[in-house]
Amino acid sequence: MNYRLGIDIGATSAKIALVSGVSRIVEEASVPTAGFPKPGELAAAMSDASRRIVRGRRVTKVGVGVAGDIDSARGIVRIGPNLGWKNVPLKKLLQARLRWPVVVDNDAKAAAWGLYNTQIPKRIRHLIVMTLGTGVGGGIILDGKLHRGATGSAGEVGHMNIAADGPPCNCGLRGCLETYVGGPHLVKRVRRDLERGQKSRLRRIFLEDQDAITPLEIAQAAKKGDAYALSVWRGVGEALGVAIGDLIYILNPQMICFTGGIAQARNLFLDPLRAKLRERTFRTPVGAVEFRIAEQAAHIGVVGASLL
Amino acid sequence: MNYRLGIDIGATSAKIALVSGVSRIVEEASVPTAGFPKPGELAAAMSDASRRIVRGRRVTKVGVGVAGDIDSARGIVRIGPNLGWKNVPLKKLLQARLRWPVVVDNDAKAAAWGLYNTQIPKRIRHLIVMTLGTGVGGGIILDGKLHRGATGSAGEVGHMNIAADGPPCNCGLRGCLETYVGGPHLVKRVRRDLERGQKSRLRRIFLEDQDAITPLEIAQAAKKGDAYALSVWRGVGEALGVAIGDLIYILNPQMICFTGGIAQARNLFLDPLRAKLRERTFRTPVGAVEFRIAEQAAHIGVVGASLL
Repeated sequence: MNYRLGIDIGATSAKIALVSGVSRIVEEASVPTAGFPKPGELAAAMSDASRRIVRGRRVTKVGVGVAGDIDSARGIVRIGPNLGWKNVPLKKLLQARLRWPVVVDNDAKAAAWGLYNTQIPKRIRHLIVMTLGTGVGGGIILDGKLHRGATGSAGEVGHMNIAADGPPCNCGLRGCLETYVGGPHLVKRVRRDLERGQKSRLRRIFLEDQDAITPLEIAQAAKKGDAYALSVWRGVGEALGVAIGDLIYILNPQMICFTGGIAQARNLFLDPLRAKLRERTFRTPVGAVEFRIAEQAAHIGVVGASLL
Repeated sequence: MNYRLGIDIGATSAKIALVSGVSRIVEEASVPTAGFPKPGELAAAMSDASRRIVRGRRVTKVGVGVAGDIDSARGIVRIGPNLGWKNVPLKKLLQARLRWPVVVDNDAKAAAWGLYNTQIPKRIRHLIVMTLGTGVGGGIILDGKLHRGATGSAGEVGHMNIAADGPPCNCGLRGCLETYVGGPHLVKRVRRDLERGQKSRLRRIFLEDQDAITPLEIAQAAKKGDAYALSVWRGVGEALGVAIGDLIYILNPQMICFTGGIAQARNLFLDPLRAKLRERTFRTPVGAVEFRIAEQAAHIGVVGASLL
């Protein structure tokens, strides 16, 4: 029996899983990552934990997903914002300790690849996965292969331009897709509007505790018919519609799959998204796209990494 | 010796060439296409002209480029705006007469494929070709292959969103890339500004003959230092910069190659384009892109078609 190791390095912990078949998780471990760990020390801790769950079984490869700008060809974390890393040769560090072949890639790409291999029908060869959460990330599968591009940076759909005069983005520009869809941006906008006296059933929550305003609360208010909350989700759908209209014209995918916390509000943003797409002239590529919401799968990060 | 036939169907004529090697044109012919020709009649005329230049030589395949929405897998012209065609089975019509294997694709894709095979260094595997002319078209080569997508519609970069409140586009939306870059749009804007009293050395030409305002005249005025004309080309570069910034984030190409009439004004739009890209945060993919202007090659359409 052959096994693969999947490692998903997040901002608070690195999840490690021993995987067999496509996605069967045999054993799991976890290593803390908070507080800008030193690369060598984290690599040692992950290697020790890996060996403990492997216990002498045959491992064919190790796949690692990390948030940031990754040089997948050389296994280097060029920029890992959560870890405070710059130009860390993670593949080399792990391979020296584990002696199995190691592949390192961006975590959104790993998750996209995991979804493609576990949840998406076989007939789909051109897929865009959009992760809608705190940020907006992406993974692009073309012709059945994960598209990495010249420097492994492809798929950064969260920073597509929606409006040059839009809200300021963490990236320094204005009006990126993420500023219309990312959770913290939604919360910030709603709080500001409520502060300015916006009428909404969110008002009571806000007056009790500002921090209680979350994407989930905004979604629940919308589901109860709150006009203001509905307009917030309409904004999400329309911004997605602009970006996805461009993506369809550029790439002509068969399917777009949403994952992440914000994606759970599908019933609130899919209709305005579709209305926005109906404005586009070229019917054939627009009509060819199916939308899907990924099943929530806590392990998609490690499974995807193990499949890299 | 083996030969290929390339056919480039334009709005006024279909150019036909017998090609050997990668791009050596052995013989040429041309057939008029103006005035919405009947599909059967045009197919017959193109087949007759093809047989005349082939004169019994061994042809391995026929490649055809047509403007419009093409179902390349089945060889159907779904929409051919220049020809007034809808759902024309061009592959079938030609194959019945010529008895050689026929491939039909969008003309911008054929030209992109031709450029990739004749002008682009072998190390380039991820390329975006942008045709800047009357319209703005595109061809995307990823991993050394022409990317067609689910319905053969990929590469429509001319209708990417630049600004929701931008100039009206032929496609029915506002603010598409084409409205900032396409020749007729530039001319229209300049005429309108001159009408409203805009100071510029283009003014004298305009007052003599409105129709003498062309992209070439606007470029020549800019080259002479005319501040207004320079601002027009800055607008071209900035709009290209927004769209190309998105394309780089999405696809992470190694090279972007411009072709078409407007591309000849490279010295006027490349600097503002690069300035716009420098605003983007992710340095690695932006720094990885080379820009190139295609050598003007009158035959790239037929050569590209023959290589499909």
